Amino acid sequence: MPELIILKLGGSVITKKSEEKAEVNEENLKRLVREIAEARRENNFRLMVVHGAGPFGHVPAKKYGLDRGLRDDTQLEGFSATHQSMERLNFSVVDFLRKEGINAIAYQPSTLGILKDKGLIYFPTEVLEKLLDMNMVPVAYGDVLVDEKTGINILSGDHLVPYLARKLKADRVVIATDVHGIFNLDPKKYKDAELIKEITSENVKLIREIGTSKRTDVTGGMERKLNELLNLAKYGIESEIISALKPGILKRALLGEKGLGTLIKK
Amino acid sequence: MPELIILKLGGSVITKKSEEKAEVNEENLKRLVREIAEARRENNFRLMVVHGAGPFGHVPAKKYGLDRGLRDDTQLEGFSATHQSMERLNFSVVDFLRKEGINAIAYQPSTLGILKDKGLIYFPTEVLEKLLDMNMVPVAYGDVLVDEKTGINILSGDHLVPYLARKLKADRVVIATDVHGIFNLDPKKYKDAELIKEITSENVKLIREIGTSKRTDVTGGMERKLNELLNLAKYGIESEIISALKPGILKRALLGEKGLGTLIKK
Repeated sequence: MPELIILKLGGSVITKKSEEKAEVNEENLKRLVREIAEARRENNFRLMVVHGAGPFGHVPAKKYGLDRGLRDDTQLEGFSATHQSMERLNFSVVDFLRKEGINAIAYQPSTLGILKDKGLIYFPTEVLEKLLDMNMVPVAYGDVLVDEKTGINILSGDHLVPYLARKLKADRVVIATDVHGIFNLDPKKYKDAELIKEITSENVKLIREIGTSKRTDVTGGMERKLNELLNLAKYGIESEIISALKPGILKRALLGEKGLGTLIKK
Repeated sequence: MPELIILKLGGSVITKKSEEKAEVNEENLKRLVREIAEARRENNFRLMVVHGAGPFGHVPAKKYGLDRGLRDDTQLEGFSATHQSMERLNFSVVDFLRKEGINAIAYQPSTLGILKDKGLIYFPTEVLEKLLDMNMVPVAYGDVLVDEKTGINILSGDHLVPYLARKLKADRVVIATDVHGIFNLDPKKYKDAELIKEITSENVKLIREIGTSKRTDVTGGMERKLNELLNLAKYGIESEIISALKPGILKRALLGEKGLGTLIKK
């Protein structure tokens, strides 16, 4: 069976940052799907894509307070609105992939997943495995899900990716973001900030100490994401956080090159 | 728990008949969602909608021969294309429902169902039941599914409806079509054709004998649909085939009125 890669496309990469209008970043998306298509022509691998939300998800989810769970029934309108908005983004991503000759298919998480206090506790993958085996490219996304504790809640793409990687026994995870990787200091504040090439459960303590001493969140809001990827690494599945903004990087990462960003390993 | 109704919206009702262009029949759809919204305001019931395909599904499915199963890999492009086209129709149906204030949410069958030689053998409904209980209106549709025997195949809405009705223990099924119901003779050929008010496993034999003697398919291509609904009636779940083209009928049917078309009962 060919290698299985799970690719996360960051919401900030494939959408335009705006509070008023949810728009696809067509320029980025076009280039990224071309890189994916080129990599798939050069190498035979199974691929699952999970994309983020950007304003398509964040704006309506915030408006209806979906991250606080279901407190009153007006939020059901928000459930409906937020999912529909994410479906619109997903439709575009699938369309762009299809235009590059990739047999992509939407993969709606809210149809089948159940959260408990924001963590996935149920997500059957029988069909997903069959789709991947027949070389289809399922395209999932951050979504609003039923939550056993809070009624409904947000499933982020960053939570879905490591969950699926472990369940599907993926060979590798690639996280395409709007940064080069994880730095030892916040690169926006410190000129001497350096990209960390590798993070393991060992060196992460040291990295955190440096950050704490300089009173900065070194992981740049990536704390939860990093913890989930470190946990995934324990099971032998490596992931690399790379820049999706620099042309060519995604393709090289999909083809197996390492050291392009920050590698998270055991 | 309020009554659960499963409503089938026929593809021929919500789309325009065309081989070239797949278009929503906005006039019909607008009226039908208004009738649904009015009925829901007058009465409290849980609702699941399943809609057909019209040219959105039939044209690409036929082009790629999807009903013959997976014979070569070019059909995977057809899988991708047909699902994407159905998703476009589904997005519109959900949008129209949302405009009438209904908390509708897309419900993608191909994410979770598995066929075996065109018959559903697996379709987990854990999430679906929770969505219905919180009074969301899931909107499923005819789709392309993984098939354990033939690779992929078509799941028709007419097959999904009785399957779900039985699994979810629905109280009633309403089938909104472009005909008034089932006639004793083909109404297009015979002027004396009469609408059959009730079909049971008993009188269906007589109806078929009349049809056979006049060399006509009395069920007007509804044979498989009728058989599935008769089977459903055995489990105590009645369904009624009604006209979605005559204004007001759908609303009355949702509100519990019987005898509007053809009732299929035990």
